Amino acid sequence: MNFADKLTAKCLATKSVTCVGLDPRPEKINKLFGINKETPLEKIAAYYEEFCKNIISAVCEIVPAVKPNIAFFESLGVPGVAAYAKVCFFAREKGLLVIGDVKRGDIGSTAEAYAYGLLGNREGKDRLSNHDAITINAYLGSDGVKPFIERGSHMAQGMFLLVKTSNPSSAELQDMILKDGGTVAERMASLVSDWGKGCIGQGGFSSVGAVVGATHGDELAKFRKLMPRTPFLLPGYGAQGAGADDIVGAFLGGGKGGVVNASRSIIFAYEKVGSDDYAAAAQTAAEEMNADIKNALEKAGKGF
Amino acid sequence: MNFADKLTAKCLATKSVTCVGLDPRPEKINKLFGINKETPLEKIAAYYEEFCKNIISAVCEIVPAVKPNIAFFESLGVPGVAAYAKVCFFAREKGLLVIGDVKRGDIGSTAEAYAYGLLGNREGKDRLSNHDAITINAYLGSDGVKPFIERGSHMAQGMFLLVKTSNPSSAELQDMILKDGGTVAERMASLVSDWGKGCIGQGGFSSVGAVVGATHGDELAKFRKLMPRTPFLLPGYGAQGAGADDIVGAFLGGGKGGVVNASRSIIFAYEKVGSDDYAAAAQTAAEEMNADIKNALEKAGKGF
Repeated sequence: MNFADKLTAKCLATKSVTCVGLDPRPEKINKLFGINKETPLEKIAAYYEEFCKNIISAVCEIVPAVKPNIAFFESLGVPGVAAYAKVCFFAREKGLLVIGDVKRGDIGSTAEAYAYGLLGNREGKDRLSNHDAITINAYLGSDGVKPFIERGSHMAQGMFLLVKTSNPSSAELQDMILKDGGTVAERMASLVSDWGKGCIGQGGFSSVGAVVGATHGDELAKFRKLMPRTPFLLPGYGAQGAGADDIVGAFLGGGKGGVVNASRSIIFAYEKVGSDDYAAAAQTAAEEMNADIKNALEKAGKGF
Repeated sequence: MNFADKLTAKCLATKSVTCVGLDPRPEKINKLFGINKETPLEKIAAYYEEFCKNIISAVCEIVPAVKPNIAFFESLGVPGVAAYAKVCFFAREKGLLVIGDVKRGDIGSTAEAYAYGLLGNREGKDRLSNHDAITINAYLGSDGVKPFIERGSHMAQGMFLLVKTSNPSSAELQDMILKDGGTVAERMASLVSDWGKGCIGQGGFSSVGAVVGATHGDELAKFRKLMPRTPFLLPGYGAQGAGADDIVGAFLGGGKGGVVNASRSIIFAYEKVGSDDYAAAAQTAAEEMNADIKNALEKAGKGF
């Protein structure tokens, strides 16, 4: 049983491929909790933690995974990182798969340190290793990736490597055409597919996944072909513009293929409904996203 | 006065372009401090801090900069990150430029959170923002880089973007040839050069720097040509195999061009001399590296 098996089982159990991105953005949280310039860092970090835990409690029975982004926590320094660790621990306790959006990457011997810290097996509320998977930037090549694969395999943990990101300027490097054909992102896709061949699970999918922006709906079938056994993490749903019909090309049916991430459109849904009950609004938004995707997948013959 | 001006001034003042990499590797530190499986995380983190501070005190008058790599600290979880913050704070107090080797990167709105956290202006021993510069992975393109440039400019802070990394497998993506000519790394070099044009300092160099492995000595002149106003961070000196003659192509004379990083060959030099006084051994090793590079630069007509 590898990470992909766990992911598929969880998607089937919840009949959902929705991943809720936990991005406590200051411009929202400050207003919600009355944070001002005098609020001490520890207090702000506690609010971030409270916000994320309430979202987690609201969605833990209806989605398979959450994706906390460590950037927002790091922006508060050490107290923020401590809050991040506690949020991950709490999400695991609630039975969710935790995809740590950390986008780490370094050369071999240093990647080993990251791998130990982020996927290692000395768990606890104080550690950063309560991840089921993390995101990785593999610009440095295989020696920066292999330590994560080795370390992750011990504990059925996985990873999602950046292939084609959801943002507009991803084209500047990732869409450059190579002399031998294909783009930089497609070359990365081939590398990711190769690196994952040694850790295929019972369901035929690897523990080495790929980040492919849901915003590139027309390219998803192509990337699926290049990476047939790779679980996809598809960010960009909702606030970044992608919808349910865009992500169909990434999936295979039976809950297989990966997860679709939405952050802002779920966790800040309270703004749209004009309520302060952000947890209830997030739950409703997640249910709506589930329904939209379920319909789109069923229409394409790829239902659960 | 931008980051590059500060860097050049500091290189001139110390007559050195040596950057000491602070990589507290467990296989060394455990032995040195008698750490075992029962040692609590907080205690290990305190040893990491002690080790780095002693190295800093030993080299702070003879080199311009240190480069702590956060991976080793993150591997200890929250106590490790707290130690990292204190090491950065201490190095700044000792007058060193601090290059945080964090290799962060994300899409625009999230990169803004990283930028605020790592280059932001709310300083303190508990923050992660006591950096003069950080390393960035720009695989995601310009919208992931601009927040760092904007945030950094406020405080004369800078950054080094990964262009051509020092590790063997860097070739797998970075050396791929593009249809329009040049490699992926050369394309990244052009982007880095462009992104840095808006923040050129008094000395003609940008606050947007590039990481180019010292291990690719034969390519340094080419990268210098592609990035004429870009300070270089050249890792890979010493343990990874590069020597003084390899790095000459990156420099211009008068202390201009960047810094050369060595980690293991300096901080673990005590092993070679058969002493436990790691600080004294590091000082001697840094002095030797200074002398070797000074000679090589002078020979090439690029002296201080």
